[in-house]
Amino acid sequence: MDVDLTLDRILDRAETLYPDREIVTARPDGSRHRYSYADAGDRIAQLAHALDELGLSPKDRIATVAGNHYRHYELYFGPSCSGRSIHMCNMRLPEEHFTYIVNDAADRVMFVDPAFLDLVESVAEDLKTVEQYVVLADEVPETSLDPVTDYESLLADHPTSYKWPDIDEEQECGMCYTSGTTGKPKGVEYSHRGVYLHSVMSGHTDANGVSERDTVMPIVPMFHANGWGLPYAATLSGAKQVLPGPHTEPEPVAELIAEEDVSMSAAVPTIWLEMAEYLDANPEIDVSNIDRLVVGGSAPPESLIRTYDEQYDAPIVQGWGMTELSPLGTLSTLRKEDADAPSEERYAKRAKAGLPVPGISVRIRDETGEPVDRDGESSGELQVRGPWVADRYHERPTATAESFTDDGWLKTGDIATWDERGYIDIVDRIKDVIKSGGEWISSVELENELMAHDAVAEASVIATSHEQWRERPVAVVVPSGEPPDPDGLEAHLAESMPSWWLPDAYEIRDAIPRTSTGKFDKKQLREGLDVTLDRTPGES
Amino acid sequence: MDVDLTLDRILDRAETLYPDREIVTARPDGSRHRYSYADAGDRIAQLAHALDELGLSPKDRIATVAGNHYRHYELYFGPSCSGRSIHMCNMRLPEEHFTYIVNDAADRVMFVDPAFLDLVESVAEDLKTVEQYVVLADEVPETSLDPVTDYESLLADHPTSYKWPDIDEEQECGMCYTSGTTGKPKGVEYSHRGVYLHSVMSGHTDANGVSERDTVMPIVPMFHANGWGLPYAATLSGAKQVLPGPHTEPEPVAELIAEEDVSMSAAVPTIWLEMAEYLDANPEIDVSNIDRLVVGGSAPPESLIRTYDEQYDAPIVQGWGMTELSPLGTLSTLRKEDADAPSEERYAKRAKAGLPVPGISVRIRDETGEPVDRDGESSGELQVRGPWVADRYHERPTATAESFTDDGWLKTGDIATWDERGYIDIVDRIKDVIKSGGEWISSVELENELMAHDAVAEASVIATSHEQWRERPVAVVVPSGEPPDPDGLEAHLAESMPSWWLPDAYEIRDAIPRTSTGKFDKKQLREGLDVTLDRTPGES
Repeated sequence: MDVDLTLDRILDRAETLYPDREIVTARPDGSRHRYSYADAGDRIAQLAHALDELGLSPKDRIATVAGNHYRHYELYFGPSCSGRSIHMCNMRLPEEHFTYIVNDAADRVMFVDPAFLDLVESVAEDLKTVEQYVVLADEVPETSLDPVTDYESLLADHPTSYKWPDIDEEQECGMCYTSGTTGKPKGVEYSHRGVYLHSVMSGHTDANGVSERDTVMPIVPMFHANGWGLPYAATLSGAKQVLPGPHTEPEPVAELIAEEDVSMSAAVPTIWLEMAEYLDANPEIDVSNIDRLVVGGSAPPESLIRTYDEQYDAPIVQGWGMTELSPLGTLSTLRKEDADAPSEERYAKRAKAGLPVPGISVRIRDETGEPVDRDGESSGELQVRGPWVADRYHERPTATAESFTDDGWLKTGDIATWDERGYIDIVDRIKDVIKSGGEWISSVELENELMAHDAVAEASVIATSHEQWRERPVAVVVPSGEPPDPDGLEAHLAESMPSWWLPDAYEIRDAIPRTSTGKFDKKQLREGLDVTLDRTPGES
Repeated sequence: MDVDLTLDRILDRAETLYPDREIVTARPDGSRHRYSYADAGDRIAQLAHALDELGLSPKDRIATVAGNHYRHYELYFGPSCSGRSIHMCNMRLPEEHFTYIVNDAADRVMFVDPAFLDLVESVAEDLKTVEQYVVLADEVPETSLDPVTDYESLLADHPTSYKWPDIDEEQECGMCYTSGTTGKPKGVEYSHRGVYLHSVMSGHTDANGVSERDTVMPIVPMFHANGWGLPYAATLSGAKQVLPGPHTEPEPVAELIAEEDVSMSAAVPTIWLEMAEYLDANPEIDVSNIDRLVVGGSAPPESLIRTYDEQYDAPIVQGWGMTELSPLGTLSTLRKEDADAPSEERYAKRAKAGLPVPGISVRIRDETGEPVDRDGESSGELQVRGPWVADRYHERPTATAESFTDDGWLKTGDIATWDERGYIDIVDRIKDVIKSGGEWISSVELENELMAHDAVAEASVIATSHEQWRERPVAVVVPSGEPPDPDGLEAHLAESMPSWWLPDAYEIRDAIPRTSTGKFDKKQLREGLDVTLDRTPGES
């Protein structure tokens, strides 16, 4: 049957079957906004009418500069279901990049949280295509933006139903930019079809299994690759949603988990690291309703997975993905054969990126383009293909040609191994690879091993130049308490790592710089070390 | 990304990630054939080469007249992945209809089980398009079919890999015929896209949740709407499969469940009714590995659901579907809100057809085409829409026009109610409706209530003509032991049914005739009653 896979069908399911299910938002002041899918549907229809009134044509883009809350959720559907596209802007980008992505996407209207008004005001005169600002609030605060209105006035008086147009499933419904550490951000266009298929997959029992029985809380920012697709997947399943607003600290997050019966939440490892410390110090807090925690952005240390298993019966499921993948590519769930394996083996497997989710095909290619052995040792570049994987960057033919193979696979830039059973392990980023005497040293494995040491909260391992070996590893370490003794760290690593992998130096720091999406910013780290590298980042 | 949703992607996933998982077949003699997805993949490639050698063009159809076994499984993929289509023939059709469907589908090659050679031989001279017969055996038995070869010779010596062609996802991959009780069977063409999406849905945690951890045994015939899609869904998930061959009796089925660790099985209610009796008489048999049983074809009586819950902790999940739906439309899973409802309420809900699965949209229209109230009482025709719902019958424009609305919905011919929470209850077939004094009487509700009586094994309620009321119900009852007393049955029904619904007569029979797909054949029943009906079946 000629039925397109479009987002209005996702919304329609929630409105038809689960109209009373709640979407709860934690406001900046800590109070909670609550409403139902039926209410959300009414306002999404009003938003679509308002976009018509603003004169937005089909396929026009609107920008959001917003956190995780119900109004942003409405913007996930109103523009796309009425045939436009939402560009979720990463407000943590450097100003220059922020200006670039808005102009590059040619966004015509910008929806801004009050908290980000300063940022937008400071760059407004460089935003060439934005014709209208809408503040995501009940009224417009003092601002230099012009013309400007508030979101509630924009919606008011519009009808609460809308006849969604027939949309081709290949049409763009949204856009995000990858915040590469080098060069300008690159735009990824999401199609209705891709987001729909990603949402169904997210409900697959061998993937995230997002169910109508779940309460889903994405802590990952909604501007970050569709909030990892969770607001869409939760809507398709009819799950209750909890949007934590600006609250990512352990105390309010734990409160939301306990009080709103959250069963599944998703965030970068740091959030769960901090949460573990907080829960350890506050044992009276009950988070037993958590069924699973999805972790992405960077790999969680094995020690973190153990902590949540042993102390909170809340399995951490690692997801590997990219903006280009909407974002999910693999999940670290255990296969049936490994469910009863010895504990050490299970944790070793769960600390990997895991198995490709249903729909994603993977292959790993060495430097000559040949497939690597599936022995869990041989490494090469991970390449992926699938119905929700982008096939180009927005108006960037050169970057597109560099990142996609002629036969249609995305070159992820990640170095990985995989084993006979299909578990994929990301051992490095191509641009972070340390090549010592012609052999690769995995910075990721060194980091994980360092972070398993009690005295270490965070660790990042980078390359420094070396006359004889070309490159040698240096570890940058954030202590969990008293600064650790480098000899102790070296002895710890020597237990499981080859001797020639051991870092040449250990630097103790208060923090490791991060990118706008929360990953270790190794480029900045390398610059901060003030040593000359004999290679350019991005070169393999 | 331009990635088509085609069946080779389903097969590739199983071969890549789960090459060692088993597909077990029970042979007619009770011995078991076992091999892996890797083995199956090799033979599927050989089959595709053999089809090339036979001179089959892209889009040609091959017919199968076969039971549930590994060779039939290979035929699920070999033709479709190489661009052809498999027409799964229902060998239980009357000969005239069987001949009709093969000619109508223009099948060029026919693959036949030895057990069905007699049938095919008896109609072979009327099969106008079949150029080649292949017997699904190691060698060709004595047969008048010509030209004929055996399946193993056909495959032998061909390469065990095949470069699958690029196929448009809209292309036909398979075909089944609906065996309507009136008129000629109608062909339903399945597309790669439809089967792919149905398979992903079948793994959704709110649908059947087919997982790589499952062992799936379809007892439902593989010619019946793709074996309810299970061989495809199990392959996508990488689940172990058990194909019971010709064995549908309780003893060998129970043995397969116990010995092969079956976690999920699917069949019509009769199979589970007989199994319950068998297990009751043989309490030493352990079927505790069963996680859930999927029941379709007709509604399971509530009493059956209770029995499996209470005695075997094996929840029965009712599925409603049609050949036109690949086949799944709804599933009787409980929503979160109802999980802890009182037992009576839960069973009443689980005895309904349930909630539309993710991807399927439903609506219910009364005789004037208006939507009925979602009050669980008001009834009308169930209409469905979705990406795996057929939009036409093969070369049958008149039947197509009758069965599909102008706005693209399939008119299912089922009379249903639905309630506020979305549970759909099939109360009758339009053509089986009993209309007494202008008001509908639900034959299905009467049947369920009768079957809940201890003395009743099966019951079917049909209309007879009546001068004053136009139609009145008559019950045909198969006793479970001693024939029941009609007064006792009447008293039982009177406890929960309106007095004017009570049947005017009770006929005791040894069996109720069934259609070729195992449903009560009410047309034959009505004829067998030897009373004149004042309405034509098919008229509402």
